[in-house]
Amino acid sequence: MRMLDLIEKKRDGGVLTPEEINFIIRRYVSGAIPDYQMSAMLMAIFFQGMLASETAALTQAMAQSGDQVDLSPIQGIKVDKHSTGGVGDKTTLIIAPMVAAAGGKIAKMSGRGLGHTGGTIDKLESIPGFQTSMTREQFFRIVNENGAAIIGQSGSIAPADKKLYALRDVTGTINSIPLIASSIMSKKLASGSDRILLDVKTGNGAFMKTLPDAVALARTMVAIGRHSGRKTIALVTNMDVPLGNCIGNALEVKEAISVLQGHGPRDLRGICILLASYLLYLSEKGSMDDCRRMAEQVLSDGSAFSSFQNMVAAQGGDVSVLDDLDTFHPSAYQTPVCAPTDGYLTEMDTQGCGVASSLLGAGRETKESRLDYSAGIFLKKKTGDFVHRGDVIAVLHTSREETLKPARDRFLQALTFGASAPLQKPLVLAQISDESEDCL
Amino acid sequence: MRMLDLIEKKRDGGVLTPEEINFIIRRYVSGAIPDYQMSAMLMAIFFQGMLASETAALTQAMAQSGDQVDLSPIQGIKVDKHSTGGVGDKTTLIIAPMVAAAGGKIAKMSGRGLGHTGGTIDKLESIPGFQTSMTREQFFRIVNENGAAIIGQSGSIAPADKKLYALRDVTGTINSIPLIASSIMSKKLASGSDRILLDVKTGNGAFMKTLPDAVALARTMVAIGRHSGRKTIALVTNMDVPLGNCIGNALEVKEAISVLQGHGPRDLRGICILLASYLLYLSEKGSMDDCRRMAEQVLSDGSAFSSFQNMVAAQGGDVSVLDDLDTFHPSAYQTPVCAPTDGYLTEMDTQGCGVASSLLGAGRETKESRLDYSAGIFLKKKTGDFVHRGDVIAVLHTSREETLKPARDRFLQALTFGASAPLQKPLVLAQISDESEDCL
Repeated sequence: MRMLDLIEKKRDGGVLTPEEINFIIRRYVSGAIPDYQMSAMLMAIFFQGMLASETAALTQAMAQSGDQVDLSPIQGIKVDKHSTGGVGDKTTLIIAPMVAAAGGKIAKMSGRGLGHTGGTIDKLESIPGFQTSMTREQFFRIVNENGAAIIGQSGSIAPADKKLYALRDVTGTINSIPLIASSIMSKKLASGSDRILLDVKTGNGAFMKTLPDAVALARTMVAIGRHSGRKTIALVTNMDVPLGNCIGNALEVKEAISVLQGHGPRDLRGICILLASYLLYLSEKGSMDDCRRMAEQVLSDGSAFSSFQNMVAAQGGDVSVLDDLDTFHPSAYQTPVCAPTDGYLTEMDTQGCGVASSLLGAGRETKESRLDYSAGIFLKKKTGDFVHRGDVIAVLHTSREETLKPARDRFLQALTFGASAPLQKPLVLAQISDESEDCL
Repeated sequence: MRMLDLIEKKRDGGVLTPEEINFIIRRYVSGAIPDYQMSAMLMAIFFQGMLASETAALTQAMAQSGDQVDLSPIQGIKVDKHSTGGVGDKTTLIIAPMVAAAGGKIAKMSGRGLGHTGGTIDKLESIPGFQTSMTREQFFRIVNENGAAIIGQSGSIAPADKKLYALRDVTGTINSIPLIASSIMSKKLASGSDRILLDVKTGNGAFMKTLPDAVALARTMVAIGRHSGRKTIALVTNMDVPLGNCIGNALEVKEAISVLQGHGPRDLRGICILLASYLLYLSEKGSMDDCRRMAEQVLSDGSAFSSFQNMVAAQGGDVSVLDDLDTFHPSAYQTPVCAPTDGYLTEMDTQGCGVASSLLGAGRETKESRLDYSAGIFLKKKTGDFVHRGDVIAVLHTSREETLKPARDRFLQALTFGASAPLQKPLVLAQISDESEDCL
C-alpha cells in the first residue's frame, strides 16, 4: 500500500477501505507518512468528501490511535454530552449535576477555550482548589459516588486527532464535515461513554454558520455513533446570540449556579432542561416526558445545586465561595456599554461578542496566555430587545483597565440596531437520532 | 500576507494575484513556506484550476526563481522546441541541425530520460566525447558559429519548478494542466529563447492520454507565451504509436542520422520536416510554404547532416563514429520478437513499448541508474501492418542477456492483434497559436 496511490484514489472520488484508512492513520501518527502527503490527502477529502462508512472508519482509527478509556468500573449507563462550541455556553456546568441529581452517570472529559469560545475546564478552574486532573481511579470513584465528574481531556486521548487538527489548522482543511465529525467523535469514542448527546451549534457565533451545514454535521456524527455501536442523538441549537447573559469564566460560573438554584435566564435554563432531559432519556431513566419532568424537578428542589456542590467538593474545590458569589472573582474594573441610538437590537455578531470578552482577558490568544477569571461581559440586553439611546446594553468586566477601550469598541461593532423587531429564531432548530429526525 | 489565507482563497475558487503568487513561490523556494502548506495549495489548484493570468504569473515567478539565461550574445532570433515526451521521439537530434542548416539559431537546453520516455541528452552522450555541459560563453560561440548547440539543462534553471515537481510527484498533484504548463514554460522562459515551438504529444504513450487534455495543455502554454511576450506555437501530435522504428539511445541516434541523410521512416521524417518548418517560420525565414521547402531541401542536399557533424564536432564528439554506424554501440545480444498470430497489428501500447525498452537497459529506473546505450527495440512492424504468424515484429537489443525475457514479455503485452485494419490517426492532430487554432 502506498500513500501516493491512496491520495490519488481519494482525489479521483474513490472510496477508501477501512484497511486503507487504518494504514494512513497508523503511519501518519508514527511519522512514516509525512505532513505534506497528509495535507494533500486532507485537501482531497475536503473536495471529494467521505461516505459514512469511510468517516466511521476514520473516526475509529483515530480513537484507536491512543488511550481508550474503559469506564466499566462505573456502574450503570455512562452518558456524555458534547457541544461544538459557542459563546456563553456554560451548559456542561449545569447539566452534569442535573443528570447526577436525577440518578444518571456522567464521566466527562472537557477541553480548554481557544479563540472566541470558552472552555469548561477554564471555567471550573476559576473555583479555588478545583482539580481537573486526577488518576483514573479517583475519577471513577467520584462518578460512582456523586454521579458526575468533569476532568480535562488527557493528551493520550486520540493523538491522531491532535496531530491532524494541528495540520488542518494551517492547511485550510478545517472546514470539512467528515473531518470535523471524525475529530469530535474520535475523542468521544475514546472517552468511553456508552451514549452520546451532541449539541451542534449553528449561527454567527458557531463554527457551522448555516443550518444545512450544522444538520449535515449532526447527521454525520450520529451515523458515526451508529457505525461504532454508541447510541448518539444530536440537537442543532441556535448560536446567533450568546447563550444566557454572561460571557467569561467566573461570570459564567455564577450564572450556572443561578440556574442550578432555580433561577437564571430563560434561554439558558430552557436549553439545560432540554439537554438534561435527553441525557436522562439516553440513561434510560424513563420516557422523554418523564425525563423532562425530572430535569425541571432537580432544578426546583435544589438537588441539582447540591450535586454541583458535591462535585466541587469531591474535586477539591472550595465550596464556601459558592455561598457568597459577590466575593467570587470580583472584577477590578467595570464599565457600562450604552446604546448609541434608539431602536431594536436586531442582531448580535456572537463571535464578535466572544472576541470582545477575550480581549478583556476571558480568553486566550495563544495556548500560553494566562486567563483573567474576573473578565467578561454581562449582557443586559440581547437580540430582539428595544433600547433607548443611553440605555445600558452590557457591563464589561476586567482586571486590566487598558482592555476596556478596545473591548468596548469591538463589542459595539458586533451590535446592529434597527427600527423593527427581528424575527426570533427558536433555540433548538433540529433533532437528529437514528430513529427520527425533526426540524423543530 | 499569510499562506493559510491564500490556500483558503484558492480552495474556495478565488483568483490569486501576481503579488500573491510571487509571495508563494519566493517563500516556498526559501523554505519559509513548508511543504505541507504547498501540497495543500497544489491539491486546491488541482481541483479549482487557474485562470490564464494566474498560470502566467505562476510561470513567471518560477522562471524568476533562478538563473534567467540572456541569449543576446547570440545574433538573430533564437528559437526553442519542446516536446512533452514520448517513445522513440528523437526529433530534437534532427531538427536542431535542420534549423541551423537553413540559417536559424537554436540554443537548446534538454533533459535526461526518466520513466518510459528517453532524453535527448542521454542520446547525445552515446556519441563518444560529446559534451553536454560547457560554459555559457562556449555555448553561445557554438550557436553563433554553427547555428545549433544542445546542452543539459543547468540545475540553476527554475529551481522552484524542481522543488515543486518533486513535491507534486509524491502528493498526487502531477496531473493538473496549469501545473504541467507552468512547469514546462518556466524552464522555456528561463532558457531565454525568443520564440517557442511546443510539440504536445497525446495518446497511449504520452502524459496527456486524450486529445482534449492535450489541446487544453497546448492552449494554456500558448497563453503563457503570450502573457510573457514570447511568441509560442503548439502542435498536438499523435503518440499512440512509437515515433519512427527505433527506441533506445544509440538506435535512435542511428535513425536520426538516417533521416538527416535523406532517408529514415516516413512518420519521423514527416514530423521533423513539419517541426523544422514551424521553427524556421518562427525564425522569420519566410512563409510557411517557403519554410517547408527549406526544411525538405536541407535533408535532401545533405546540409542538415553536415550541420549535425559540425555540432557533434563543436561539442567534442567523435565524428568518425558517424561514418560507420555498424560500429556505433553494437549490441551484444539481439533477439527477434515474432508475431504469435496472423492479423493486423491494431494497437501498440506505446508506454508499454517504452517500458520494455527501458527493461533492456535503455532507460533509468532511478536517477542513479547507468544506461546501456546499445539497448532498445528496432520495430519492423507498427500499428496498421498485417503480420503472419512467425513474422518478425521487432528486434530487441541489449548488452545484458537476462533482460531479454522480461522485455520480450512486456513488449508482447503491449501489442494487440485483430482481423481488420485499425483506423490510422494523422500524425498532427491540432495546431494552436495566438492567431489561429486548427484541428488538423
